Amino acid sequence: MRGLAVFPEAREVRLVEQPEPLPVTGTQVLLRILEVGICGTDREIGAFTYGTPPPGSDHLILGHEALAEVAETGPDVTLVRPGDLVVPTVRRPCPHARCRACRAERQDFCVTGDFRERGIKEAHGFLQEWTVEDEAYLVVVPRELSDVAVLIEPLTVAAKAAEQAQAVQERLPWERTRIRALVLGAGPVGILGAMSMVVKRYDTFVYSLESAASERAALIRALGASYICGQDVSLRDLEPFDVIYEAVGISSVAFAAFTALDSNGLFIFTGIPGHGAANPINTDALMRDIVLKNQLILGTVNASRSAYELAISELEQAMFLFPQSVRALITRRSTLEESPRLVTEHGGIKQVVKLANGRAP
Amino acid sequence: MRGLAVFPEAREVRLVEQPEPLPVTGTQVLLRILEVGICGTDREIGAFTYGTPPPGSDHLILGHEALAEVAETGPDVTLVRPGDLVVPTVRRPCPHARCRACRAERQDFCVTGDFRERGIKEAHGFLQEWTVEDEAYLVVVPRELSDVAVLIEPLTVAAKAAEQAQAVQERLPWERTRIRALVLGAGPVGILGAMSMVVKRYDTFVYSLESAASERAALIRALGASYICGQDVSLRDLEPFDVIYEAVGISSVAFAAFTALDSNGLFIFTGIPGHGAANPINTDALMRDIVLKNQLILGTVNASRSAYELAISELEQAMFLFPQSVRALITRRSTLEESPRLVTEHGGIKQVVKLANGRAP
Repeated sequence: MRGLAVFPEAREVRLVEQPEPLPVTGTQVLLRILEVGICGTDREIGAFTYGTPPPGSDHLILGHEALAEVAETGPDVTLVRPGDLVVPTVRRPCPHARCRACRAERQDFCVTGDFRERGIKEAHGFLQEWTVEDEAYLVVVPRELSDVAVLIEPLTVAAKAAEQAQAVQERLPWERTRIRALVLGAGPVGILGAMSMVVKRYDTFVYSLESAASERAALIRALGASYICGQDVSLRDLEPFDVIYEAVGISSVAFAAFTALDSNGLFIFTGIPGHGAANPINTDALMRDIVLKNQLILGTVNASRSAYELAISELEQAMFLFPQSVRALITRRSTLEESPRLVTEHGGIKQVVKLANGRAP
Repeated sequence: MRGLAVFPEAREVRLVEQPEPLPVTGTQVLLRILEVGICGTDREIGAFTYGTPPPGSDHLILGHEALAEVAETGPDVTLVRPGDLVVPTVRRPCPHARCRACRAERQDFCVTGDFRERGIKEAHGFLQEWTVEDEAYLVVVPRELSDVAVLIEPLTVAAKAAEQAQAVQERLPWERTRIRALVLGAGPVGILGAMSMVVKRYDTFVYSLESAASERAALIRALGASYICGQDVSLRDLEPFDVIYEAVGISSVAFAAFTALDSNGLFIFTGIPGHGAANPINTDALMRDIVLKNQLILGTVNASRSAYELAISELEQAMFLFPQSVRALITRRSTLEESPRLVTEHGGIKQVVKLANGRAP
């Protein structure tokens, strides 16, 4: 069977022939991969600046935003059935006894850093025709979502942030209604973040550099958020926000936006900046505000099963409220043969590789 | 009756004669003030850089760390009785309907900034012989704590931080045992912060510049924490911490300490820096760590009634575990006549003004 591989040593990105999977045993599940989305992390791996092949392998099969169908189940599988549509989670536990998060199968919050991630770190990904996975890492998806379910994994960034935000803001007189939220950035993480906030009934604004007349700005408005063009409006001129969601990964943008955060406000960092140099910021002013306004900064990466389940609910809500706009987030579906260029080129919102058709609903 | 007043316009700090309180009505309580502690905020107000008198007054009566005895109660008072030992809370609600925190009498998390604070902002403090307060703002203290109860208000900084930490870390696989905690600074806030963490069974370290052979370092060890002298040890050489508690108010120190924060770590800011200039920090590295390690920064100021109640419990625990060391935190008790110099001079850990004796237990 074929897959898309990155060879970090040889600096190649190309289709490879992988061995056919062995018959499943125990709680293993054979998955037919239907679709895989491509994101910024895939492009970093494709540029050889990130990612690690499995031990002993000269290549890493890409792909962590997957939608798959259960083809066969091992004799001890109880959680999924053949024909189920599933999204696999990404992170796999570290082996250390002292990591209670991994021992408790949280699939998140590993403290040792020795976790693996499918398609990213020391484990092959899902951009191949078949794969085997333990049932513990599969989240069942309703058939009705099949044409947009490839968005579930990227939507977990916002869903995990929402879980974390809810958990931390409960310490305040936090009103889930009437929350003013600002999303920094109009890439896929930003747009999905805004969608997640809109379905939570937040008064949601997306701030980015694209013109307010752009197609992307129109799509953001169609998803129920307001669009603010950074070329026209300064953050200092806006009423302060209860939540700011950073989805660009540029620390200078993030720290400059602190002036727009209200008392009791929450700033969520999701973007991962490069290795930059020292940046002159007024840390005294930042720290004064954080203390005197009881503010909170939260960093979030990866997602556990509960965030996948929340992402599915949010996607259902969004498909009820604005189905055409949700579908429009998927820019194009390419074939496996076309996939190598997707990890080097950048275009549209979400590029998807289609590997197979699922069976009819 | 006499009180200690700051005259910001005239730049004077002196004893003044205040009108005797009127007979109490409704839910009002007449308090005989027993003791008032002096803190850095009082010294800032005494240096005319902070603090605001009540509207129409040319002076502000100082004092917000009070211990008092109930002398008389209004006809509708149900929560306290004459003879009760009480600590009054500091913050009073803003008048705005839109501030749900103040409307819900949280005594914290005001969103408008128009709250008042006794002894600090637009309301006279407790450094006077008598005062009248509504029963809603009084926290009853057991008589057994009377000789150290003046420490309750400053201990609420740590108690509120503990409440907030508990609330936010519940989102993680957070183990309340085996927490490694670092306190930055060995002033009163730092030492009380360390004491609060020790009684929670955290493995607690205090990092400051005083010599490890100093009396202060010895007191910190006697309170069950480890002392690290910043002149001997770099934070980079230490195992990372689950919690870092900033109690110095120097942003360069705080941000430099981020390298000592572990995955899933919590950084609590309690100190309020001055108005400094831009400080070159690597915001990219900071933001990467916050995201990739699921870290959290929490700012905290002021405290609600629940934090006073927690501070009382923690003080009782500490008085059981190391009573002599807790008593040693009170450097000296001065008279009201001696009090003006306390707000201009700095010495020891906690300076206290003794105004009256409470009745025998």
